[in-house]
Amino acid sequence: MKSFNPPRRTLMGPGPSDIHPRVLAALSRPTVGHLDPTFVGMMDEVKEMLRYVFRTENDLTLPISAPGSAGMETCLVNLIEPGDVVVVCVNGVFGGRMKEIVGRCGGTPVVVEDRWGDPVDLQKAEDALKANPGARAMCWVDGETSTGVRSDSSALCALAAKHGALSIVDAVTSLGGTPVLVDEWGADAVYSGSQKCLSCVPGISPVTFGERAVERIRGRNAPVQSWFMDLNLVMGYWGGSGGAPRTYHHTAPVNALYALHESLVMIREEGIQDGWARHRRMYNALAAGLEAMGLGLFVAEEHRLPQLNSVTVPEGVDEAAVRRRLLDDYGLEIGAGLGALAGKVWRIGLMGQSATPVNVTLCLGALESVLADAGAGITVGTALPAANRELTQG
Amino acid sequence: MKSFNPPRRTLMGPGPSDIHPRVLAALSRPTVGHLDPTFVGMMDEVKEMLRYVFRTENDLTLPISAPGSAGMETCLVNLIEPGDVVVVCVNGVFGGRMKEIVGRCGGTPVVVEDRWGDPVDLQKAEDALKANPGARAMCWVDGETSTGVRSDSSALCALAAKHGALSIVDAVTSLGGTPVLVDEWGADAVYSGSQKCLSCVPGISPVTFGERAVERIRGRNAPVQSWFMDLNLVMGYWGGSGGAPRTYHHTAPVNALYALHESLVMIREEGIQDGWARHRRMYNALAAGLEAMGLGLFVAEEHRLPQLNSVTVPEGVDEAAVRRRLLDDYGLEIGAGLGALAGKVWRIGLMGQSATPVNVTLCLGALESVLADAGAGITVGTALPAANRELTQG
Repeated sequence: MKSFNPPRRTLMGPGPSDIHPRVLAALSRPTVGHLDPTFVGMMDEVKEMLRYVFRTENDLTLPISAPGSAGMETCLVNLIEPGDVVVVCVNGVFGGRMKEIVGRCGGTPVVVEDRWGDPVDLQKAEDALKANPGARAMCWVDGETSTGVRSDSSALCALAAKHGALSIVDAVTSLGGTPVLVDEWGADAVYSGSQKCLSCVPGISPVTFGERAVERIRGRNAPVQSWFMDLNLVMGYWGGSGGAPRTYHHTAPVNALYALHESLVMIREEGIQDGWARHRRMYNALAAGLEAMGLGLFVAEEHRLPQLNSVTVPEGVDEAAVRRRLLDDYGLEIGAGLGALAGKVWRIGLMGQSATPVNVTLCLGALESVLADAGAGITVGTALPAANRELTQG
Repeated sequence: MKSFNPPRRTLMGPGPSDIHPRVLAALSRPTVGHLDPTFVGMMDEVKEMLRYVFRTENDLTLPISAPGSAGMETCLVNLIEPGDVVVVCVNGVFGGRMKEIVGRCGGTPVVVEDRWGDPVDLQKAEDALKANPGARAMCWVDGETSTGVRSDSSALCALAAKHGALSIVDAVTSLGGTPVLVDEWGADAVYSGSQKCLSCVPGISPVTFGERAVERIRGRNAPVQSWFMDLNLVMGYWGGSGGAPRTYHHTAPVNALYALHESLVMIREEGIQDGWARHRRMYNALAAGLEAMGLGLFVAEEHRLPQLNSVTVPEGVDEAAVRRRLLDDYGLEIGAGLGALAGKVWRIGLMGQSATPVNVTLCLGALESVLADAGAGITVGTALPAANRELTQG
């Protein structure tokens, strides 16, 4: 068995995204103990920088030592108790996953269903809250990774608050790419992932909880069914802001947290608003190029998530063969459709370090060439001029 | 906020252990997608090498994408259903954690308690099995990280099998340092951690399940309460041995798995039996040095785990101040006592890449100097000659 040397890839799928060499360098710095005083100092900086990207003052803001799906489960398992009614908005794979987990927590999910590719319908959400007075929470996906649609989380948070329900928001794909305004929205619990617009290695899930959520966790009747995800215990290690001594809970993923720290330093250097604008600009260029090429985007323009673009596969084209050629000839990864959209769309990510003119140019050029070669009736040389008009603006 | 540059440390606590530069180099290789064909090939190699270190042919052998505590919870949450009686052997912190999780799974723990520092008592374990016919499982810690004691897992597995209970074994600290013989023991489920004797970065938990355990998981009545840890779903991504197509479950921690792969390659290069022998030899040297210095080991000689040594803190010595000086002056981390042993012992780890003559020599020399300076009545220069006699043998 030999050492593994991965090929060079450009990552433009639904995550992981490209990782800056600075982050990879931080990742490989020598490991220190998870209770080392220098490491504990770094943990405080990570928490502070996560508050910056989440746009919040929430004290309970920290990275969970596992992937985004575990962040989702951490939010639900801590806030939901057996018997709780939870309004779950489902408009893609990840809303469906929330519903599944609510059930496994002993909650009763009330599903608000919308067509995949549409945002959560505000009227239907409010109707569900009205029909279920006393609902413990409402949860939804701010940016659905399976479709690339963005819902109106500001309005949904207001609805949940109005009806006395906690708001639980999936910001896995949105955090860092589009505004996730935890305090302005009044969101009670929000989780994300490290490997999307934060451009860190996969395996970490940043979460943040507001005061109402913390009260709810502290005032539970039943213990949290997961020991690993029990925030009453996790808080003992990650601590409050007062510098209380840290107690061992589990061994933190030390090196992955070095990497998260560095990716957050880079986001601060750019400025989060400038980062949002960059994602928007790269999306404008990609979309212009795709449209010039004759390809359609699956989501209506006003609801698109700039960092994740579902592109309709043209009639008669073998979508898997196209992805395979992009990977083999260009080292370029784009994503397949997921769930109900398998075989129907490609998902092109412009997340974090993948949202650059270099990547947009490569993706459009390579896709055009491969599609032309596949007999999809596409003329090479139409996408880049259209994209370029957007790239050279601003 | 600036980049974080950790200090140089020698890690001789209860984990993480020192990490070889080859593993850190692997860790920082460019990220590829978690469904990239080259990555999927690497996953198969990781599974094969985990079977090698676990000494098993178990098909269901894979790394869980979270720390060892999540590996513990994964085993319990998949094998235990509400109402199940589970014999839990508790002789330290981690047995206590198993009991806690069994309760959160809706199981009824029947505790077999032994003094911290003693191994699990076989007679008491069998009595508990006899008194609870139909017990679903018996679980225990093979090498208790909180005390450094080793229990007789071979005999305990035989007892469990004799009484029709599944055996669930914590091998977090033992795997790679002392024989963990899954097939020879007939263990049904075993979990470990990446950051101990495997000398990989923290954050990954290798697990293995035998046929009886897999049947149990497939034949459950209640769904697994954790979605993230549900092996019925995790198996879809990690796959069987037949090369069936992988389906997305969560985004794997790609870079941490590069590191695990490399650490396993290194274990194969050394040969696992030679690795066990090295841990034993370094322990002999460390123990000889500590005894020459006049320090006592907490666990009786015949039950000691060579890779984790609990050293009794001498009367009148400020144990935290000693650890702090070792850290500040020598960059050397040793562990504090945990739970009931806090303040009473130090825990000195000789795990994986930390089990070397360099580390043993540094640890004895530094500890002798700091203790002499602290007025503990210790003469500098007595430990190393004793240790050296062991190091130069064989």
